[in-house]
Amino acid sequence: MATSSPMVPHLPVVLVLAGHDPTGGAGLVADSEAIAANGGWALTIPTAWTVQNCRDVSEVIPADPDAMRRMALALDDFDIAAIKVGLVASSSTLDAVTDIVRRRPGVPLVLDPVLRAGGGSELSTAELVDGLRERLLPLVDILTPNRQELSRLTLGLEGDDTRRAVELMTLGCQAILVTGTDDPIDRVPRDRVQHTLHAPDLSRQWSWPRLDGQFHGSGCTLAAALAARLGTGESLVAACEQAQAFTWQSLAHGWQPGEAQILPRRLWRLAVMPERVDGVPPS
Amino acid sequence: MATSSPMVPHLPVVLVLAGHDPTGGAGLVADSEAIAANGGWALTIPTAWTVQNCRDVSEVIPADPDAMRRMALALDDFDIAAIKVGLVASSSTLDAVTDIVRRRPGVPLVLDPVLRAGGGSELSTAELVDGLRERLLPLVDILTPNRQELSRLTLGLEGDDTRRAVELMTLGCQAILVTGTDDPIDRVPRDRVQHTLHAPDLSRQWSWPRLDGQFHGSGCTLAAALAARLGTGESLVAACEQAQAFTWQSLAHGWQPGEAQILPRRLWRLAVMPERVDGVPPS
Repeated sequence: MATSSPMVPHLPVVLVLAGHDPTGGAGLVADSEAIAANGGWALTIPTAWTVQNCRDVSEVIPADPDAMRRMALALDDFDIAAIKVGLVASSSTLDAVTDIVRRRPGVPLVLDPVLRAGGGSELSTAELVDGLRERLLPLVDILTPNRQELSRLTLGLEGDDTRRAVELMTLGCQAILVTGTDDPIDRVPRDRVQHTLHAPDLSRQWSWPRLDGQFHGSGCTLAAALAARLGTGESLVAACEQAQAFTWQSLAHGWQPGEAQILPRRLWRLAVMPERVDGVPPS
Repeated sequence: MATSSPMVPHLPVVLVLAGHDPTGGAGLVADSEAIAANGGWALTIPTAWTVQNCRDVSEVIPADPDAMRRMALALDDFDIAAIKVGLVASSSTLDAVTDIVRRRPGVPLVLDPVLRAGGGSELSTAELVDGLRERLLPLVDILTPNRQELSRLTLGLEGDDTRRAVELMTLGCQAILVTGTDDPIDRVPRDRVQHTLHAPDLSRQWSWPRLDGQFHGSGCTLAAALAARLGTGESLVAACEQAQAFTWQSLAHGWQPGEAQILPRRLWRLAVMPERVDGVPPS
């Protein structure tokens, strides 16, 4: 007689389309961690490989779009509760991403528009920004740009963040959570970080204590946690709030392997040192 | 004044060279999870992309070996406490793996010789087996084959597992943990699974309750947990025992998304449903 597994509830599955970051600070490994820590299970389809460390990204190699499509087809027997899209590094991978997303109509889609690396390297082009606006935004349930990304996605539109958010909503994006860490609004105290949710019928702001240091992967963490929360059925406002709280804690528990960026520790609730694993009779 | 992060100990870093599995059951995402759950931090360099689901692997696309080398170079400022090598899918990626590993002399190296998918698909060739034997095994501190892999790596050598293990140790491999789940030894009771550690000066056996079902990623989980444990400075025997206990628990807490293989849940100690994240003043 073999031993049966304890009953485990069905986990909400989040499909991640994102780049791979060898450091684990960002990209699909980070997304997977954030999703697991928020109660989900991640499937990951790489959109790009990168060469990077905790200072900057030195190379982005777009994935083969046809291989991405075949990976998605092979996953057809998974129920998908939410989708998270991160770095889209070429027009042909954007085609693959839109094809894959369109095969799952009605599934909440979170887009983290990764346009530039934390270290400053450009990861996008004007053509790609146009492609994101025209082909992907109409499918997006919630977009999570920082203020610079919001500005670039609205092609330098004059006015404030609200006006820019409204412009993106006219393109079909359902809601926008604008993060204010990197480029703070003048009237926000310097020891606070303010994030704002824009949606057609509501607007909501959150303010968090600003953390010291430069972080590697905070945007990925936020968007992936948000997708997992939406996948479990949380409301938009609750999911936005909990994803922010989760990200804040991951950053506050981050660790710094060298002199450069801090890596978020999304599994801070696990012990740092390996615990002894017990409970199995070993003979 | 920004808020400082709480002090976090330096995490032992494990460099993973492995394939990517979109399901997250196996491959570098799984390795990263296992390493985090055992107190480490994973850096991941992909050796291959795969098309697969919980039934079988339908495609393996070897990574660009030069991109792998550049990824490794970019990570030079990380201290590496252990290395885990998984799927090596071509001779040129084997070259890259050996080059990368040789740049970190003295770092414990765990090799999980992935030669066949759980669903039965062949992932290796006679040429690759020869390459593993001649070029990678001399660098390996501990090898984690199942009994079929042990037989293939010894080119069908007559005799028992001990004789085969001794043959691999003459090639330079320091120790071998042979797993007995898939191809049990006749004298082991059918409700138990027996794993055996062979090393020049010791031999040790463990017996575990056999779990129902087919699992996707148990070998990756074991080898990655073992690397993390060695990276924290645990002794070989303690690390082998704890990695087995961890793997057993991950499998026992696994979940089954469809009718096919069960996915290990390496983060079973996190709540399944998302917990409310508190502790941050939100305004």
